[in-house]
Amino acid sequence: MSNLAAPANPVKRICIIGLGLIGGSFARALRDAGFDGHLTGVIRSPETGRRATELGLVDSIEADAAVGVADADVILLAVPMLAMRSQLETIRYAVKPTAVITDAGSVKGCFVEDARAVFGSLQQIVPGHPIAGREKSGVDAADGSLFRDRRVLLTPLLETSRKAVNTVRLLWEMTGATVEELTPEHHDRVLAATSHLPHVLAFALVDTLATQHEAEEIFRFAAGGFRDFTRIASSDAIMWRDVCLTNREAVCAAIDSLDEHLQRLRGAIDRADGEAIEETFRRARAARDKHT
Amino acid sequence: MSNLAAPANPVKRICIIGLGLIGGSFARALRDAGFDGHLTGVIRSPETGRRATELGLVDSIEADAAVGVADADVILLAVPMLAMRSQLETIRYAVKPTAVITDAGSVKGCFVEDARAVFGSLQQIVPGHPIAGREKSGVDAADGSLFRDRRVLLTPLLETSRKAVNTVRLLWEMTGATVEELTPEHHDRVLAATSHLPHVLAFALVDTLATQHEAEEIFRFAAGGFRDFTRIASSDAIMWRDVCLTNREAVCAAIDSLDEHLQRLRGAIDRADGEAIEETFRRARAARDKHT
Repeated sequence: MSNLAAPANPVKRICIIGLGLIGGSFARALRDAGFDGHLTGVIRSPETGRRATELGLVDSIEADAAVGVADADVILLAVPMLAMRSQLETIRYAVKPTAVITDAGSVKGCFVEDARAVFGSLQQIVPGHPIAGREKSGVDAADGSLFRDRRVLLTPLLETSRKAVNTVRLLWEMTGATVEELTPEHHDRVLAATSHLPHVLAFALVDTLATQHEAEEIFRFAAGGFRDFTRIASSDAIMWRDVCLTNREAVCAAIDSLDEHLQRLRGAIDRADGEAIEETFRRARAARDKHT
Repeated sequence: MSNLAAPANPVKRICIIGLGLIGGSFARALRDAGFDGHLTGVIRSPETGRRATELGLVDSIEADAAVGVADADVILLAVPMLAMRSQLETIRYAVKPTAVITDAGSVKGCFVEDARAVFGSLQQIVPGHPIAGREKSGVDAADGSLFRDRRVLLTPLLETSRKAVNTVRLLWEMTGATVEELTPEHHDRVLAATSHLPHVLAFALVDTLATQHEAEEIFRFAAGGFRDFTRIASSDAIMWRDVCLTNREAVCAAIDSLDEHLQRLRGAIDRADGEAIEETFRRARAARDKHT
């Protein structure tokens, strides 16, 4: 708090555009950490706005982003990837010149493109991505501990002001997260493998089973492993559609890489090559046990 | 207990061949439920035998299955699928004629074949499969609550004695499980989709990531969803190798079915068909939320 309250870096007003799981949890976490400035939430649906107020997530609600950002020192965009550009266009001439803009989108190359198209420069813009989520979505899922001990990845460009980066870093650190920096391209490639691909796979698997004629039984005879495995298939469809659409190349490459391994494994099963199957399973088990 | 203690159906001695997660948990669950007969564990490794004794799982340990089953009223085989036949051969002439033999293997067609090859008839043999597991294996993972509120699937044939089926059913019900019956073929097809395929996918995914040059980072930036998704990749390699080898056709068919859906989804992502992606994701989410 002392850093934030210091005259050199006074974050007094934060505007959060989108009060879903991520935006709502960010607000709650800042409050829990003692942030005593003003929190504005921008949300179009009056019902969600009322609910956010009831939950005490923010101090004020605005339906129009241009109004919400007017006095903000920091603006967080927490909307699906394909909604980013229109939000940036809406706030373009409403933000203070000193305001820092950041986001919580899962794809960073796309956000950088959008920001450059709208603002020209990313000097005051710090692309970010909290690696935290839950299959639940919406303002009621907001949880002040969502980011605790999680990683937040920032992908500033060379032109991005270090002061702006540090402002965003401090806010995320207040939520309990650890902040790391990398390039947008690097981020999108790694996250395609570690997050986007598993979601695509889980959606594909559940859809495969749901469209079989024994679907009822299949789900009835599913054990705990299956439930864990497919939990992420209950994630928000729009959010993940947008991730796929805005990180197409990396997601397709990740699918191809998985498919190559899967076909190799299928071949080993088909020709009853126990040695090859066992080797793959052992390697996977060792890798998972080592890394998690 | 009254049923089991009744003179018509006196289960006084149970022999469990294999004291891993499933065999050990079965013993512990029976004890917890008040089974006061004699429990014999058959295990070759002296160390595991000592550990099982220390944990109080069984009353006696035998290294030789033929000795262990001699006086048993019920015998449970809880070993990997490919070890079933040699165990059946070992006990063939050592079991009492009235003894009931059952198993806990994940593939039922294969066990039926093994049992028929060794015993000729399945009159006293009740193929079974508790749908419960954990990524931990070994005797130390034994847990008396593992089967509570889980399903146990029995796949008796027409020739199987109803009395034998009921004996096995009662024991599983003592562990807290719900017992259902279906055919071996039906079981293997449904379980290929709901259990074997997710395991193959999880192993394939982790292996894919582990063999990429950014493996370290990929695992470091993985979130909770990834950990849940890949938890089953920490399962026992031998057990799952055997499942793949003994249910080859159904597992390969399940992989092909998933691959068809995955390729369709990849096509939609590649051509930026947001509508098709969203439709798939929504359908999957609805199916999962409905069934789990």
